[in-house]
Amino acid sequence: MNSFQYKNPTKIIFGKDKIATLKTELPADARILMLYGGGSIKKNGIYEQVKSALEGFQVIEFGGIPANPEYDILLEALQIIEKENISFMLAVGGGSVIDGTKFLSAAAYYQGEQPWDMLTSRQPILKGLPFATVLTLPATGSEMNSGTVITREETKEKLAMGGPGLFPVFSILDPQVVISIPERQLVNGITDAFTHVLEQYMTYPAGGILQDRFAESILQTLIEVAPVIIKDPANYEAASNFMWSCTMALNGLIQQGVPGDWTVHAMGHELTALYGIDHARTLAIIAPSHYRYYFDNKKEKLAQYAERVWKITEGTLEEKAQKGIEKTEAFFQGMGIATTLAAYTEEVVGTAQTIAQRFSDRGWKSMGERGALNPEDVEKIVEMSYY
Amino acid sequence: MNSFQYKNPTKIIFGKDKIATLKTELPADARILMLYGGGSIKKNGIYEQVKSALEGFQVIEFGGIPANPEYDILLEALQIIEKENISFMLAVGGGSVIDGTKFLSAAAYYQGEQPWDMLTSRQPILKGLPFATVLTLPATGSEMNSGTVITREETKEKLAMGGPGLFPVFSILDPQVVISIPERQLVNGITDAFTHVLEQYMTYPAGGILQDRFAESILQTLIEVAPVIIKDPANYEAASNFMWSCTMALNGLIQQGVPGDWTVHAMGHELTALYGIDHARTLAIIAPSHYRYYFDNKKEKLAQYAERVWKITEGTLEEKAQKGIEKTEAFFQGMGIATTLAAYTEEVVGTAQTIAQRFSDRGWKSMGERGALNPEDVEKIVEMSYY
Repeated sequence: MNSFQYKNPTKIIFGKDKIATLKTELPADARILMLYGGGSIKKNGIYEQVKSALEGFQVIEFGGIPANPEYDILLEALQIIEKENISFMLAVGGGSVIDGTKFLSAAAYYQGEQPWDMLTSRQPILKGLPFATVLTLPATGSEMNSGTVITREETKEKLAMGGPGLFPVFSILDPQVVISIPERQLVNGITDAFTHVLEQYMTYPAGGILQDRFAESILQTLIEVAPVIIKDPANYEAASNFMWSCTMALNGLIQQGVPGDWTVHAMGHELTALYGIDHARTLAIIAPSHYRYYFDNKKEKLAQYAERVWKITEGTLEEKAQKGIEKTEAFFQGMGIATTLAAYTEEVVGTAQTIAQRFSDRGWKSMGERGALNPEDVEKIVEMSYY
Repeated sequence: MNSFQYKNPTKIIFGKDKIATLKTELPADARILMLYGGGSIKKNGIYEQVKSALEGFQVIEFGGIPANPEYDILLEALQIIEKENISFMLAVGGGSVIDGTKFLSAAAYYQGEQPWDMLTSRQPILKGLPFATVLTLPATGSEMNSGTVITREETKEKLAMGGPGLFPVFSILDPQVVISIPERQLVNGITDAFTHVLEQYMTYPAGGILQDRFAESILQTLIEVAPVIIKDPANYEAASNFMWSCTMALNGLIQQGVPGDWTVHAMGHELTALYGIDHARTLAIIAPSHYRYYFDNKKEKLAQYAERVWKITEGTLEEKAQKGIEKTEAFFQGMGIATTLAAYTEEVVGTAQTIAQRFSDRGWKSMGERGALNPEDVEKIVEMSYY
């Protein structure tokens, strides 16, 4: 096991009808900016629940944060924060709204030239404007971590940043929100959380016996609850385990003391930036090819995964590892998620070269759990994902 | 899954040679009280490592905190805290030293008549004098939770208290400390952590699918590493997984959203208070009888545990559940831990009545995961544990 430091100060308030606790959790004298997305919260009743809990507080609203939170739109919110002396933010939404709020948290205190520089410089954010979240879409884990991913349409870029200053003060998780999530987003959420775990687990054996078992626990739980909530999002037991699994998949715990990969995300982000493909689906496109390409490096963990998560008991280590990849593809496909790029766009040719060039331009030459992934590898992996 | 609130702000610093990070983690201008136990840290080199890291800080030492931290001794430390204007405490030890330090953390701010009243009143502690820990004995999880158990020789009592004000600011976990732990304490630590998980898991099915799997992960890891570290405490991989498992067993995570029992501990504490039996061993004495007595209530979880943790695939649910109890006994016994009271004391007769009377005197009439355990049950369970 590697050495690590771990601290996660976010308070989780989990359960039925917990949105009302905003009343007591929010600082009474705060000037609050309430942020949300495209307006689905106005259709599913969450907006009313939040507004009702916010009665008596000083609140300004900022709606319209899109999926893949857009830099230019966030700059508008930043102006409001400055002009209105906002002292606390409340993100009501899924990963995009929460990630946008985190960017604003950092930007509110940023002293540099342009807030975008925070994303290219990759410096950890030590202090941010305090914020909380009401989670409406389980998927990204953003409600209990300190990372954010921001998109810039102008340059077709999608970049990550984070740091100990960007944890939510508290996050409210009411599994009843799952009832009103469209199936497309539900399966995206399952796929996203599942791949988050894989990025932290599918590397090489590193003596993290407990971490491995925790990761496998989340994968097994997602596999168990996926068909139940897709069939019946009102199943509270399945919804609550889905929601808690998504949070635990990326709140930092399972990555402590073990190597991480994250290059499936790096490549996937490019597919979203280039073609607007849903984030989760880009991961389902890239992951199988990535594991096939790095088979020799990852085969021990792939076989362990096949044995423990998918109960594959027959065959050599290599055969089990191979089965592990196939089972993963079948799991995504079984939820209606296509696992090739060609299923999403006709412009596949040249994509691999474009993405490899971008990695090269950014100097991303030693990525992945062994620092061995370079732009040439990226080109091959993306190409393998075409059809 | 039940509703829950979860927040754990303790920073974990985990790995080889991390004691030196005290230098940068401790507040520079603090007046520090360094607390430790019977002096084993002076033999195994940890004392020197800590003192070396503390150079330049204002430090007063208080050694001699015994296993089962004794109220009267802690009152002496409390006088030093007041007289010397201590602003930060550093516990260097295992669960007893850390628990003693937590009691002092609360007592330093306590306004009532007698600090013991904090233990009998069971009011949550909202604010304490800040403290950190250097863990020398993995077992109790006290390094990452906000609970403490204090013993009073005068009245032969052992009581628990806690609250959000009693989390360590940070805890340093260097698995290399395991090398110098005597085998007796090593197997106590494994048994203690194992039983902590059981108390939060061996109840009834409550829809905590992920929590169950996390609990089973810790149990499986402890079972896997136990023989390795008993044979070779210098095995870093086993030691680090043992250490992290003990922390995760009782840092609050696996208990969220599911019922807990904790009556094995309540009865076990009495055996320590009456006969001075090692805490972990009292749990090994009580747990099997407790599960046999409450078999009908716990059999579903016992069977799930037998299947998933011990890989028992044959038999009816009841037979599997029975096997689960037997496997647990065998696991303890295999480490040299006797599982009957008579193995520790000749005064078994009357013990059950004494303990039942104490529960009755304290008004503890509805304990356990269903609030159904009363003093009559306690009497029967303890009696079943005699031989």
